[in-house]
Amino acid sequence: MSNQADVIIPAMRLSELGEFGLIDLIRTASARYQNPGRTPWRDLLLGIGDDAAAWQTGNRIQLATTDTLVQSVHFDLALITWEELGWKALAVNLSDIAAMGGIPKYALLSLVLPAALDVKDISEFIDSITHMAAEFGVAIVGGNVATAANVVITITIIGCSQGRTMLERSTASPGEQIAVTGYMGLSAAGLEMLKGRTVSDPDARNILRQAHLKPVPRVKEGQILIEQGVMTAIDISDGLVADLGHICESSKVSAKINIDQVPVHPAVTAHFTDYQELALSGGEDYELLFTADKAVVARAKQALSCPVTVIGSITKEELPTRVLVVDNRGTIVSCQKKGWDHFKNAVSHARFT
Amino acid sequence: MSNQADVIIPAMRLSELGEFGLIDLIRTASARYQNPGRTPWRDLLLGIGDDAAAWQTGNRIQLATTDTLVQSVHFDLALITWEELGWKALAVNLSDIAAMGGIPKYALLSLVLPAALDVKDISEFIDSITHMAAEFGVAIVGGNVATAANVVITITIIGCSQGRTMLERSTASPGEQIAVTGYMGLSAAGLEMLKGRTVSDPDARNILRQAHLKPVPRVKEGQILIEQGVMTAIDISDGLVADLGHICESSKVSAKINIDQVPVHPAVTAHFTDYQELALSGGEDYELLFTADKAVVARAKQALSCPVTVIGSITKEELPTRVLVVDNRGTIVSCQKKGWDHFKNAVSHARFT
Repeated sequence: MSNQADVIIPAMRLSELGEFGLIDLIRTASARYQNPGRTPWRDLLLGIGDDAAAWQTGNRIQLATTDTLVQSVHFDLALITWEELGWKALAVNLSDIAAMGGIPKYALLSLVLPAALDVKDISEFIDSITHMAAEFGVAIVGGNVATAANVVITITIIGCSQGRTMLERSTASPGEQIAVTGYMGLSAAGLEMLKGRTVSDPDARNILRQAHLKPVPRVKEGQILIEQGVMTAIDISDGLVADLGHICESSKVSAKINIDQVPVHPAVTAHFTDYQELALSGGEDYELLFTADKAVVARAKQALSCPVTVIGSITKEELPTRVLVVDNRGTIVSCQKKGWDHFKNAVSHARFT
Repeated sequence: MSNQADVIIPAMRLSELGEFGLIDLIRTASARYQNPGRTPWRDLLLGIGDDAAAWQTGNRIQLATTDTLVQSVHFDLALITWEELGWKALAVNLSDIAAMGGIPKYALLSLVLPAALDVKDISEFIDSITHMAAEFGVAIVGGNVATAANVVITITIIGCSQGRTMLERSTASPGEQIAVTGYMGLSAAGLEMLKGRTVSDPDARNILRQAHLKPVPRVKEGQILIEQGVMTAIDISDGLVADLGHICESSKVSAKINIDQVPVHPAVTAHFTDYQELALSGGEDYELLFTADKAVVARAKQALSCPVTVIGSITKEELPTRVLVVDNRGTIVSCQKKGWDHFKNAVSHARFT
């Protein structure tokens, strides 16, 4: 034994490593053992680090993504109905396929459930998830059930590309416009309301609740973006700035957005004084953020029936700033929240597809 | 409101419905909404109810399966090392692909982990899983990480068929022989030992520990079975009788096996007086059980390098008995344990792929 064995290395906790550190650990370990000559690696187009994994099969690209919702972390059974939970669990996964511009096809459902659950509740959940799956053309083809004290729902969706292309995170170029579908911060405002913030207007209440608990994944919209020539997109799950940051990091570029151009729904501006903060870092909007040349963005805007707003542009990489937020007067706006880190307790489940 | 609203219907708990009841609920709900004309359903070969889901893509069959291990339900961190846990988590999934005679290719990893975990432990786990994946030619292409008080590991494996065929549960015919690879009850005996039963012989201790904590999925063997003309197989996860019962139910047949022909490892017979019980219903052996004509079984036995033992034959459906167990003298042996039901608390995580 060398002397080094006597040196006590302080134990590091997962809370210190953080979830992105953990993902890096998995990526590094995988790279260590993989053999690029073997079929799965040769056919692999995208592994860890995009919204979904992608590989070539014949003349189609196959896509796969998985997402987990954990009770008391991602949802509170006092605030969400079982019907809404079924919807949301599937929606967050469909949104990852949407961010690839793909067609979702098959789903596997892993349910960890307490044995004391009421069958009526679980029936509502199952009915919701299977109904929504069918609406999106997805077949639930299998899964797994097990028991535990807390609910953990893991869904895997397998899909494919429409043609030979997909939307990626790593293809943004300086000079491109940055655009988003829908509104930012609606889901986070909905969560604030559910947790007790007063919103008196019943219509606004409905919109906010729906946005947080039953987000509509932009599956059709993702496919239209590809048809119109868009190549770069991500879905907004971690928050606008955090997710734009993921695109910048993957594409080795920076970005500048104007907070005064970021689309915020009237239900949010009317009831939340901190609406800008919610829009920039609220997360869970499950809208699409995409970048493309001005002409392509204009075409996409025409083709899509949902709101599309240009909020800024991609710039050359200027580290350490990935995402610069300014207002109409050109003043830099600081963005407080950076997004959740599961282990550091600082926004969202980190997917590494 | 009708009077019916006043009738109080006693709430039913998931513990009363049971896990197979829950799987039926999912199957029924899916069937209610699915449209057989749409692509995913048209291409679907096997949905809920086999070891993996299967669908046609070009001239290959694609396979997908998912399995979850829950702390304190499927494993006890006091009895398993993180290195072993990584192995086992992947092995139970690979075994499902083995049961289809398929080639595993891509894995998605969903990890729910306590933030207080030691990074050294989780590194061992990740290293083990990525190393094993590479050994089996599998690329880890993505996943998800989240935090919770208890560890929940969900792995999804996507694979494909070698040629145009796969092993199924529903193709067994009366008159066919029933055969198994390896030994039965080794894993269950290993668990008994880990939980405190005395096994003094160190070699036996090693074999038993390995069998329970690091089972070797029969991936190559499943592929060889197909090459030799076998069509029907399942992996033994719930227990020999329970899993043979799954084949019988899917194939609408019954089965008769001879307990005195069931292969039990000397490490088990030497230390466990209840070795027959362990062999019949212990579960988690991750061996392959297959049925075929005598000539095909003989060919398979020749082609495989592991032990292959004929333990009985498929008979015409004679309900209510699916699986009849007899001994050398023809006496009927009653099988006490029926297999675990997660919610009823009565063997294993129920996969419904």
